[in-house]
Amino acid sequence: MKIAVLPGDGIGTEIVAEAVKVLNALALPLEMETALVGGVAYDAHGHPLPEATLKLAKEADAVLFGAVGDWKYDKLERQFRPEQAILGLRKNLGLFANFRPAICYEQLVGASSLKPELIAGLDILIIRELTGDIYFGQPRGRRIATDGHFPGAEEAFDTMRYSRPEIERIAHVAFQAARKRSKRVTSVDKNNVLETSQLWKDVMVEVGQQYPDVELDHMLVDNAAMQLVKAPKKFDVLVTGNMFGDILSDEASMLTGSIGMLPSASLNSSNQGLYEPSHGSAPDIAGKGIANPLATILSAAMMLRFSLNQEAAALRIEAAVKKVLEQGFRTADIYSEGTTRASTKEMGDAVVKAL
Amino acid sequence: MKIAVLPGDGIGTEIVAEAVKVLNALALPLEMETALVGGVAYDAHGHPLPEATLKLAKEADAVLFGAVGDWKYDKLERQFRPEQAILGLRKNLGLFANFRPAICYEQLVGASSLKPELIAGLDILIIRELTGDIYFGQPRGRRIATDGHFPGAEEAFDTMRYSRPEIERIAHVAFQAARKRSKRVTSVDKNNVLETSQLWKDVMVEVGQQYPDVELDHMLVDNAAMQLVKAPKKFDVLVTGNMFGDILSDEASMLTGSIGMLPSASLNSSNQGLYEPSHGSAPDIAGKGIANPLATILSAAMMLRFSLNQEAAALRIEAAVKKVLEQGFRTADIYSEGTTRASTKEMGDAVVKAL
Ligand SMILES: CC(C)[C@H](C(=O)O)[C@@H](O)C(=O)O
Ligand SMILES: CC(C)[C@H](C(=O)O)[C@@H](O)C(=O)O
Repeated sequence: MKIAVLPGDGIGTEIVAEAVKVLNALALPLEMETALVGGVAYDAHGHPLPEATLKLAKEADAVLFGAVGDWKYDKLERQFRPEQAILGLRKNLGLFANFRPAICYEQLVGASSLKPELIAGLDILIIRELTGDIYFGQPRGRRIATDGHFPGAEEAFDTMRYSRPEIERIAHVAFQAARKRSKRVTSVDKNNVLETSQLWKDVMVEVGQQYPDVELDHMLVDNAAMQLVKAPKKFDVLVTGNMFGDILSDEASMLTGSIGMLPSASLNSSNQGLYEPSHGSAPDIAGKGIANPLATILSAAMMLRFSLNQEAAALRIEAAVKKVLEQGFRTADIYSEGTTRASTKEMGDAVVKAL
Repeated sequence: MKIAVLPGDGIGTEIVAEAVKVLNALALPLEMETALVGGVAYDAHGHPLPEATLKLAKEADAVLFGAVGDWKYDKLERQFRPEQAILGLRKNLGLFANFRPAICYEQLVGASSLKPELIAGLDILIIRELTGDIYFGQPRGRRIATDGHFPGAEEAFDTMRYSRPEIERIAHVAFQAARKRSKRVTSVDKNNVLETSQLWKDVMVEVGQQYPDVELDHMLVDNAAMQLVKAPKKFDVLVTGNMFGDILSDEASMLTGSIGMLPSASLNSSNQGLYEPSHGSAPDIAGKGIANPLATILSAAMMLRFSLNQEAAALRIEAAVKKVLEQGFRTADIYSEGTTRASTKEMGDAVVKAL
């Protein structure tokens, strides 16, 4: 089982080191190889996703990814900015199915912005399409407008698009995931305005007919953004396109109050996957040894489950994480009075011990 | 001063009646004419925005709008659905500047999903561009894909676009609004992915140089969706495009917990405007006389201020609304123990009395 380890920028190195430590403690035949990605790769090789890194990722069964990005690259042309690495990996590996759980851990209810009764027990699975939509749609660019409000003026444009099979395959992913949970799918779109959303909704309905045991409902994206705040626990599996999924999954993860705990998986049709924490590279706390490694450790668990077929090992990690929370260990982001403050490394060590 | 009164569907009739009552109580020379819009207009004339209604709106100084929409029109072709009326009015009247305050009223802090300390005193002004972006961008439709993941498959597509002058004018609106407040503007985009957003950001920076007294910062839309949950009070004026504004303004208004209190204004370059509550037509409670009319009454106040140049009258209404809240009147949506439950009509009467 080959794993490409791409720590990236900011806290990436620190949190990935702990996840690797946990993986090593499992004594499985895992072959891990590390490569540069993001800003550090740009610094070293002039590109955020160097050829060698992409090759390593493609040949691996799974990619364990830290985080990319730093203010200092903001001035670069877009194609050289760190986040292009993650877009490039998604595109080149065909990682169309993004799983982002928004879970509120019992012990961390207090960390949420929301009142405890609204958030306790929250367990949403957001499934975001990840290789289509306005993220990758062509044509896009700048030109002189020939119509619209100001013909003759400079304009910029992008293309939102989804084809029927692209929607079908993510729909199947959502319905199948729902079968393993509470058998409810909420599909989010903006069909009252967008052609793309109307096709999205039509195809969801069609595919839904193959899953008569799963209840499907539809919600407009603006309403979904509201309902997540108002009554997040009403959601179970939420499936949506790349752009809306970007916004809603971040909103949902912040609702839990402990985004430092939330893993993610991005899969292609052969279950090759990229696993990364839901949070970013946090350059402001990089190098201080205080970042929370649990989202990355839990991402490693998802990797064992989805790409490496090691369900037992995944469960072991997840149980260990629960245990360290019960034991009271907390990194700075989730610290509260009466708990034990742990550094990044101490948290990783505690998980290994709890295995 | 001519006002087109368009109550629309669902609770629209009930809430607009109360706002009209309040306007009448001001004894100003207001000429009000009512017309059908939305589903009721479709039922009567086969179109959600009949010619006569559009003409009335165009010739008025301002439009007082209730709400449109009902499940029973969901099956219609998109062009006949109620919400097309609001899109048609925005487009035909050129209402490019949408003002959506997200305010948390002192007495209603408890109604929010958020913890009181995060939300008390919240006062954000979201300025959303309203006639451009993917809402109106051509081309759009369905076709057979010639490239992408599945060439040959049916696909749907939409065009996101903004021209430089479209961004400039909304930027000026935002900076000028900020001058009257705390002199801070947060511009929200997705420049790490979208060409349109990159131009948006570039133009915001350029226009910002004409307002050296206003502080400008930029935030990615996914991060904005998170920060609104995490620390909403950090925002003051938030300016963004039509699509992101749709999502973020709804998220922000739900954060306050009292979306039934929040007005909105949509203006064109001659200060002609459409004024409507931030909430929808709520068909489930229509006809019961329990809807909250305050958002519509406060929208009427915005109308007096922005389109009719009657600042004193606007302030009178706003003070009256504060007063009825202090007096303890509450419609069902904001009711809590120890307050006085009021029907839609009783709430309107209370405001009139408090004038
Ligand atoms: C870094 C950025 C391009 C990316 C996205 O928008 O998809 C990120 O926000 C995410 O959600 O993984
Ligand atoms: C009804 C719909 C078309 C509209 C929009 O998306 O703009 C609504 O959600 C709004 O925000 O006013």
